[in-house]
Amino acid sequence: MPQFMDVHTSMKGVTAEQLHAAHQADLAIQGEESVDFKQAWADPTTGHVFCLSEAPSAEAVQRIHQRAGHPFDEVHEITVTA
Amino acid sequence: MPQFMDVHTSMKGVTAEQLHAAHQADLAIQGEESVDFKQAWADPTTGHVFCLSEAPSAEAVQRIHQRAGHPFDEVHEITVTA
Repeated sequence: MPQFMDVHTSMKGVTAEQLHAAHQADLAIQGEESVDFKQAWADPTTGHVFCLSEAPSAEAVQRIHQRAGHPFDEVHEITVTA
Repeated sequence: MPQFMDVHTSMKGVTAEQLHAAHQADLAIQGEESVDFKQAWADPTTGHVFCLSEAPSAEAVQRIHQRAGHPFDEVHEITVTA
């Protein structure tokens, strides 16, 4: 299954509670698109959030994020790791 | 220990071998700055590489990356995860 890192850039001030709620909203519906969100890392100071997932396509990741209320600003298909 | 996600944006075409070599170059000297690189995720198509680390500061991460020959383009202190 392809792996993706998507990036949100407008989440300045995001709290642990808000990130947890956003992540839970993704998890609740991700199965409908065969997406599997692995983890989310946030920098509330710059407003950046990085989400790692496995999914059939970048579009599937975006559809879940969009329906959950937080579309990404960019996405990268991860094909090499170290 | 603070956690950081740094981003390289000019690594188009990076191969598994090249990313592995770059990561090993970091690991070889990271102890000198008390940095602990956890993982690197690359998208050779867009040239983006995301590196997760624990370190005393963003500057320590940059010094290791710089000495290893691949300074980052941006860095984010991760204070919230989900």
